[in-house]
Amino acid sequence: MAQEDIFKKLVAHCKEYGYVFQSSEIYDGLSAVYDYGQYGVELKNNIKKYWWDSMVLLHENVVGLDSAIFMHPTIWKASGHVDAFNDPLIDNKDSKKRYRADVLIEDQLAKIEEKINKEITKAKKRFGDAFDEKQFRETNPRVLANQKKFDDLHERYTKALNDSDLNELKQIIVDQEIACPISGTRNWTDVRQFNLMFSTEMGSTSDGAMKIYLRPETAQGIFVNYLNVQKSGRMKIPFGIAQIGKAFRNEIVARQFIFRMREFEQMEMQFFVRPGTELDWFKNWKSTRMKWHQALGFGEENYRFHEHEKLAHYANAAVDIEYKFPFGFKEVEGIHSRTDFDLSQHEKYSGRKIRYFDPELNESYVPYVVETSIGVDRMFLQVISAAYCEEELEKDSRVVLKLPPVLAPVKLAVLPLVKKDGLPEKAREIIDNLKFDFNCQYDEKDSIGKRYRRQDAIGTPFCVTVDHQTSEDNSVTIRYRDSMKQERVNISELGRIIGEKVSMRNLFEKL
Amino acid sequence: MAQEDIFKKLVAHCKEYGYVFQSSEIYDGLSAVYDYGQYGVELKNNIKKYWWDSMVLLHENVVGLDSAIFMHPTIWKASGHVDAFNDPLIDNKDSKKRYRADVLIEDQLAKIEEKINKEITKAKKRFGDAFDEKQFRETNPRVLANQKKFDDLHERYTKALNDSDLNELKQIIVDQEIACPISGTRNWTDVRQFNLMFSTEMGSTSDGAMKIYLRPETAQGIFVNYLNVQKSGRMKIPFGIAQIGKAFRNEIVARQFIFRMREFEQMEMQFFVRPGTELDWFKNWKSTRMKWHQALGFGEENYRFHEHEKLAHYANAAVDIEYKFPFGFKEVEGIHSRTDFDLSQHEKYSGRKIRYFDPELNESYVPYVVETSIGVDRMFLQVISAAYCEEELEKDSRVVLKLPPVLAPVKLAVLPLVKKDGLPEKAREIIDNLKFDFNCQYDEKDSIGKRYRRQDAIGTPFCVTVDHQTSEDNSVTIRYRDSMKQERVNISELGRIIGEKVSMRNLFEKL
Repeated sequence: MAQEDIFKKLVAHCKEYGYVFQSSEIYDGLSAVYDYGQYGVELKNNIKKYWWDSMVLLHENVVGLDSAIFMHPTIWKASGHVDAFNDPLIDNKDSKKRYRADVLIEDQLAKIEEKINKEITKAKKRFGDAFDEKQFRETNPRVLANQKKFDDLHERYTKALNDSDLNELKQIIVDQEIACPISGTRNWTDVRQFNLMFSTEMGSTSDGAMKIYLRPETAQGIFVNYLNVQKSGRMKIPFGIAQIGKAFRNEIVARQFIFRMREFEQMEMQFFVRPGTELDWFKNWKSTRMKWHQALGFGEENYRFHEHEKLAHYANAAVDIEYKFPFGFKEVEGIHSRTDFDLSQHEKYSGRKIRYFDPELNESYVPYVVETSIGVDRMFLQVISAAYCEEELEKDSRVVLKLPPVLAPVKLAVLPLVKKDGLPEKAREIIDNLKFDFNCQYDEKDSIGKRYRRQDAIGTPFCVTVDHQTSEDNSVTIRYRDSMKQERVNISELGRIIGEKVSMRNLFEKL
Repeated sequence: MAQEDIFKKLVAHCKEYGYVFQSSEIYDGLSAVYDYGQYGVELKNNIKKYWWDSMVLLHENVVGLDSAIFMHPTIWKASGHVDAFNDPLIDNKDSKKRYRADVLIEDQLAKIEEKINKEITKAKKRFGDAFDEKQFRETNPRVLANQKKFDDLHERYTKALNDSDLNELKQIIVDQEIACPISGTRNWTDVRQFNLMFSTEMGSTSDGAMKIYLRPETAQGIFVNYLNVQKSGRMKIPFGIAQIGKAFRNEIVARQFIFRMREFEQMEMQFFVRPGTELDWFKNWKSTRMKWHQALGFGEENYRFHEHEKLAHYANAAVDIEYKFPFGFKEVEGIHSRTDFDLSQHEKYSGRKIRYFDPELNESYVPYVVETSIGVDRMFLQVISAAYCEEELEKDSRVVLKLPPVLAPVKLAVLPLVKKDGLPEKAREIIDNLKFDFNCQYDEKDSIGKRYRRQDAIGTPFCVTVDHQTSEDNSVTIRYRDSMKQERVNISELGRIIGEKVSMRNLFEKL
C-alpha cells in the first residue's frame, strides 16, 4: 500500500480508537490543533515519563524544572525571537490567499525534482536490470537541463533566505512564474515578514496592559532560571536542567496531522558546560539520545543523523535525529551546541551577571550550553506510526498497534470467556488485585475473538482470559499481542509476569 | 509565631530550596506568575500522579483526556465566558490606579468587622474568664452599631453583585466614602466590566486572523470531547473524563503567592450521569474527594466543607473542600453538580446532538454532569504549607518539610560519612542500584549533621549513611526524617524498605 494511504489510515485509526481527535471537532475544528483522547493521553504520558526518568533519574547531574508559559517580554527580545522569529508571507491579489514565500519556492523545487525522477523511472522500466542511474543522470540531456534548473534555483533561494532578502524572494516567485494554486494567477503582493509568536495582553492598569508572548520554545525558561537552579540546587558544572512543557507557534502552513501544530509540547534539556568542552558534550549527548530512541525497538535502520550545514546564529554544531515517517525521514529531535549565546544575551538585557565560578579553574565564566530538544507530539507520531501494523492472518486480518509494552496505554485486558458461571466475578477479582499497578481494562462484550481484535487495535500487550478451568485450578490464559500465542499461568503469577514486561527498567538497561 | 510570618518564611524557603521561583526573576519578575524549581516540579508531578492514578486507575469508569489550550472561540460563547466572565473594575482619577470594585467593598466590610473584633478583644482582656462574648455582642452599643453597619452594607453589596449592577457598586463606594489607598482621594471613575480571558490572534489570512482565547478552565475541553470519548471508548453512563492542564485568567488582584495566579493548572473530572441521579453522585464524589485529601495525613481537623449558598447559573449543588492555610480556611477543591447546562449549550451553539442512548431506559438524553475541580498549584501550596515545620531540638533547631514520602521529590539521600576509605564508591554503588526506582541524591559535602539538615529542608524522608562498618558487614544506617531515629539495615534490604514506604498503594488503601 502507498505510504500516504497508510498515513491516512493511521490518522483515521487514531480518531476511531480514542488516540487523537481534531480540536473543537463539533465546532468544525480548529486548524492545526489536536486533542489527545483516552488512550492518546496515556501513551503521551508514558513517553513523557520515559524521557523524564531517563534524564532525571539516570543522570545524577540533571534536574527538572517547570517554568511558566508566560514570561517577561524582554526575554524574547534578548533571545532574538521578537526581531527574527518570522516567516516570509505573500498574498495572491486575486484569490486573496496567503502563502509562505519559502514554501512556494520549495514546492517549485520539488516539481523540478519530480520531473527528473519521472525520467529516471521511465528509463528504469525501459532498460530493466541494465539501467545505470548514475550514468543516466550524467548524460541524459533532459535530466541535465532540469538538474541545472534545480541547482540554480536552489542556490539563489538559499542565498535569499540567508540574507532575509524579501525582495529577492518575491523576484524568484515572479521569475519562476509561480502561480497561485487557487486563482491560477501570478498577481502577487510583496513579501512581508510575519512573526510566529502569539501575543496577548496581561493585566489592566489605567496606563494600559502589558503585551506578552506565549513562549515559542521552552528553552528560555531554563536559561532565565539558570542562576536559581544552580544556586538552590548547589549544582556543579557540568549539569543539566530538563523541562517538559507547551510552546506555541502561529504556523501559517501547519500540516501532517500532529507533526507540526500551533500548540505543541517540548521536552528540552539544557546542559551547562565549561567553555571549550561543548563539542565533546555535543558528541556525547548525540549518541545518548540516539540510544534512547533506538531502545524502543523500532529498528535501527529507521533512524539517521542529519548534520546541519547551515548553523543558526547561536550554534556551533547542530544535528537532527530523523525517523523514517510514512511521509519520509523527518526530524524528531535536535541536538544543538548553543555556545554562550543565550546566557550572554540575558546578561546583556537583564543587567544581571550570569556566571559560574569554576573552583578547578579558579575563574568565573558564562557557561556554554548543549541542548537536546524533542517534540512530544512528534515523538508520539513517531511511536504510533512505527507501531501501526495491518496484518493478514490465516482466516482474517487485523490492525494492531505494536507499542512497546512500557508505553502501551492499557497494559492488560481481563476477559471472562462467558458472561456467567462466576467468570465475570473472577475477572473483576483479578482486576481489583492488579489495578493499583497497571492500567487494566475489563471487557465481556462480544466473542473472545472480537475482544482480542479490539485490544490489538488499541495496542494492549496482554489479554488475560478467564474460563471454566479458572474456577477449578485458578489458572488463566495470557495471550500475547504480537505473537498471538497463548500461555496458561496461575493467577498469582500475573503481577510478576506482566510487571517484568512493562517495566521501564527494560528500556533503561539498553541506555 | 504569627501565621503571616510563617507564610513569609514558607515563601522564602520555597525559593531558597528550589521549590518555587518568581517567574522571570532576573527581569524583575512577572506579576502573579511563578516557576517550579528542581524540587517543586517533582512535588507537583507527584501530586498530579496521585490525582491521576486515583481517578483513572482506581475507577474503571473514569478515563483520561488531554485537550489543547486553544479551542474554537464559539465554545466560550456557548459556555458563557465571553459574556459573563468579568470583574468589575474602577479607577481612581488622581492616582490612576485601577481596583476591583468588589474588592474595595469587601475590604470595607473587613474594616468594620475588625472594629467589632477590637471591641471584643478589649472587653475580653478587661473581664477575663467572666467574659461572655455572645452577651457582649448582643448588648454593647458600639458593637451593635457596627454590626448593623456591616449587615446593611453586606446585604446591599450582595444584591448589587447578584444583579451585576455596576452603577450600584459605584454608588456603594461613594456612599461608604471609600478612598484610594494611594492618593487618599474619592475621585472615582464609573465601574466597568473587564473580561478575565486572555485573547490572541491565530493564523494570518488576508481577511485577517481569528481571535481565540486561552482557556480559563479545562472543563470545556472535556465537554466538547464528550461524544468522541463516549463513542471511541464505548463508555456507558455513569462514566467520567479526567484531565490535567493549564488554564489562564487575567486576574487584576492576584495574591497569596501561588494561591491565585494568572497561569495555573487544573485537575478536573467531569462525571456524566443519568438525569435525576446527579445529586446522589454529587454526594458520592464529595465524600470520595474528601477522603483523597485526608489520606495525605495532614489532620482531618484542617479540612472542612463549605456549601455554596448562592449557586452559579449552571449548578444545582456546589460545595468546596477548604483547607486551613496559614491565611485561613480557603478552597482547594470544588465539587459541582453542573446539570446539563454545558452539554445543552454546546448542542445549541454547535448544532450537533450531544446525547446518550440509555439502553436500560430505552431513551436518549443529554447527560447530567458532576464535576470535581482542583487547582494543582493550590494543592501544592496546601501540601507544602502543611508540611513546613520549624522544630526546636535539644541543641539546635531545624526546618523540615514533613511531606508524605510518596510525594517527596527526593526519596533518599546517600551520604558517605567521610570522603575517603572507599565510602564514596560504596555510596555510589547503592545509588546505582536504586536510581531506577527512586529519585536519589548523593551528598558528601560538610558534616553529616549539616547534610541531614539540608535533606530535612527539602523533605527527603530517608537518609542512608555509609560508614566504616559498611565495608565490614554491608550494613548502613537509615535515618528517618520525622523521628530522626536511625536504624541499621543491610544494603540488600534498602530497596524493599523504602519501596514499601513510598508506594502510592499506601494512599490508595485509605481511599
